[in-house]
Amino acid sequence: MTGTKAAFFNVQPVASALDTLFQHWTPELRTEKLDTRQALGRVLAAAPLSPMHLPSFRRSTMDGYAVRAADTYGASQSLPAYLTCVGTITMGTETTGDIQSGQAVLIHTGGMLPISADAVVMIERTQAIGENEIEVLSPAAPGENVVQIGEDVTLNEAILPVGHRLRAQDIGGLLAVGILSVEVVKPPRVGILSSGDELIVPDEQPSPGQIRDINTYTLAGLLQEAGGKIVSLGIARDEMEHFLMLAQNSFPSCDLLVITAGSSMSTRDLTCEVITKLGKPGILQHGLAVKPGKPTIIAVCNDKPVIGLPGNPVSAFLVALQIVVPLIKRLLHEASRPAATVRATLASNIPSTAGREDMIPVHLISQNGGFVAEPVFGKSNLIYTLVKADGLLHIPLNQTGLKAGATVEVTLF
Amino acid sequence: MTGTKAAFFNVQPVASALDTLFQHWTPELRTEKLDTRQALGRVLAAAPLSPMHLPSFRRSTMDGYAVRAADTYGASQSLPAYLTCVGTITMGTETTGDIQSGQAVLIHTGGMLPISADAVVMIERTQAIGENEIEVLSPAAPGENVVQIGEDVTLNEAILPVGHRLRAQDIGGLLAVGILSVEVVKPPRVGILSSGDELIVPDEQPSPGQIRDINTYTLAGLLQEAGGKIVSLGIARDEMEHFLMLAQNSFPSCDLLVITAGSSMSTRDLTCEVITKLGKPGILQHGLAVKPGKPTIIAVCNDKPVIGLPGNPVSAFLVALQIVVPLIKRLLHEASRPAATVRATLASNIPSTAGREDMIPVHLISQNGGFVAEPVFGKSNLIYTLVKADGLLHIPLNQTGLKAGATVEVTLF
Repeated sequence: MTGTKAAFFNVQPVASALDTLFQHWTPELRTEKLDTRQALGRVLAAAPLSPMHLPSFRRSTMDGYAVRAADTYGASQSLPAYLTCVGTITMGTETTGDIQSGQAVLIHTGGMLPISADAVVMIERTQAIGENEIEVLSPAAPGENVVQIGEDVTLNEAILPVGHRLRAQDIGGLLAVGILSVEVVKPPRVGILSSGDELIVPDEQPSPGQIRDINTYTLAGLLQEAGGKIVSLGIARDEMEHFLMLAQNSFPSCDLLVITAGSSMSTRDLTCEVITKLGKPGILQHGLAVKPGKPTIIAVCNDKPVIGLPGNPVSAFLVALQIVVPLIKRLLHEASRPAATVRATLASNIPSTAGREDMIPVHLISQNGGFVAEPVFGKSNLIYTLVKADGLLHIPLNQTGLKAGATVEVTLF
Repeated sequence: MTGTKAAFFNVQPVASALDTLFQHWTPELRTEKLDTRQALGRVLAAAPLSPMHLPSFRRSTMDGYAVRAADTYGASQSLPAYLTCVGTITMGTETTGDIQSGQAVLIHTGGMLPISADAVVMIERTQAIGENEIEVLSPAAPGENVVQIGEDVTLNEAILPVGHRLRAQDIGGLLAVGILSVEVVKPPRVGILSSGDELIVPDEQPSPGQIRDINTYTLAGLLQEAGGKIVSLGIARDEMEHFLMLAQNSFPSCDLLVITAGSSMSTRDLTCEVITKLGKPGILQHGLAVKPGKPTIIAVCNDKPVIGLPGNPVSAFLVALQIVVPLIKRLLHEASRPAATVRATLASNIPSTAGREDMIPVHLISQNGGFVAEPVFGKSNLIYTLVKADGLLHIPLNQTGLKAGATVEVTLF
């Protein structure tokens, strides 16, 4: 009974555990067609080509006069060019009339230029004299204040790459050229299964010895925000039959299964057995060189990743951030993007062991126009250490700690 | 007809325009009760108090033996303490049995300590000898490897402040103490009205002189992500009756109205007239010291903010980011949070005029483990300058520009 299994973990860094997983698993691409207006936040599965030049006609960028630029050469305040104004461009309709040399036409921002006009003189650079004559007070270069045909985007241009997550402005760009539907990646179905005899659903009143299951909900929130579609599998009792039944029942309808092991060692062993029964090749790695999160299980069963997370809610959440979120991005075939952080000054020393990554919850305090990052103290299994934190500090594998006063990059969460 | 109205704008910096608005408007607090499990991303309208101590019993943080710490004083590898193991704690049930001096009980992570035990010795620091006896190889301090009652959160503790936007871990923290519903702020209803005779809905094929309305959708995406509930009012023609009808019909059911003016000067004047008719005090500010976005209108009508954005999609989007998103946060009574950015090296000089803020779309290129920020060139009214950009560079009011090679903070968007 002096099991020292935990001590015998052959731990791997997070990055190499993920590499191992990717060697055993290639996600399939499941796509669907969506109305572009409903596609905010979705990932493109095909690169749309523009079906048109945008704009499709030469538009003015200013309120002013459409002119032939050559008619304004050398114009100045003291020696203006005199042009005859022959009308006003109507917004929203085709400009069919034209201007001759010596003529101008009043045009508004967005108006369509007459065929022979090649520039727009801002209204502020003109002076009306009489009813139909204007003075142009400075020369216009050809093309000045004009958006050319196709200047925004050209016919057949690939406008966004595969793997791009659509933002508000992208939806606008697509609609601007009349792309009304897009091929996007289906949200991966992420099964979440909690286990542990001590767990009850939050609606129940815990008796002594019991606690409410929260991993089901913290992980659902995190993984849903990453783009997953959550399938809640419930709470497995610490016995093989019930645990395996819950896992097997839903496994076929998931693209990825996350199991939070009960907190006791025996449950962790049970989790391993259940995962082994879900399919080949099974467990690839047991143990990560990360704190918290050491007893994490990485597996592939029947071409699907299965991740066994530690049962304590803090470890489960932080390992899910590092392991499960990247898997969802892989399932979404989403291109990587730069990570934004908040720079802060560290308030106190943080020790760390070389050969292990550390994830430290920190509280950010506004000070002198910048921020101070204060580690949130408390045992690493207390959910309120995450509730009270504004972000995470990551200490990489081969760093032995951070000193008070150091400038650090905090990832908000 | 040589109107130079635009040049006469009495422009104000964004911050002082917002100040003026806040002097004339105090948002009402509209709340609703929600199932905690459905409240991800919502803003708390009341500060929940914990109805219990968490944990409600003393839990072990390790697999090991629950002991009386005093029994292990002075224990070492060469001179272990000998204890009698009197059983195993069952997970999920109340521990009713107790230990006497000289006794220990096997306990798993999360198990409930017997009343007289005050520490847990990790299993790795013990050695089984015979069936019921163990050697303890190092001393345990009182409280070691034990989570005390209320150590995560205590009874009646205010666990999250009003104005806090709920994250995945917060949902977990609330559910952990059995808070099954929360009082949150109702999403503010944001009316979006486009105007301009040249605009058609994206489903239509534009004739020469026409363009598709995209502001309705880019703003909807942006403002929905900020927490607004979008009410689309459609496209107003450039004539008073239609424009005013669309605005007035929906104004009573909105908490905030955003109008994108048509691009021509006459439409901008029309927008001013419509806003003036929506209620008192009306227009507070016309003109912002920001590029793009100068012709923005800030108004309060009948105790609701009305923002007139420039018609060009880039200006409309960038001003909405600076003006409308903060109004939505105000309507949500949301506490401000640190802003995360990506640090990058600027690829080229950017000129800017003092007394004006600039918003420069930039593309981020990964280079030498860092990023280079390349301004996206193109006329400022081309939507693809935003589609091709990864983020924004903000040049503050009194800076005259940035030099190539400077370290800059890019806000992703």
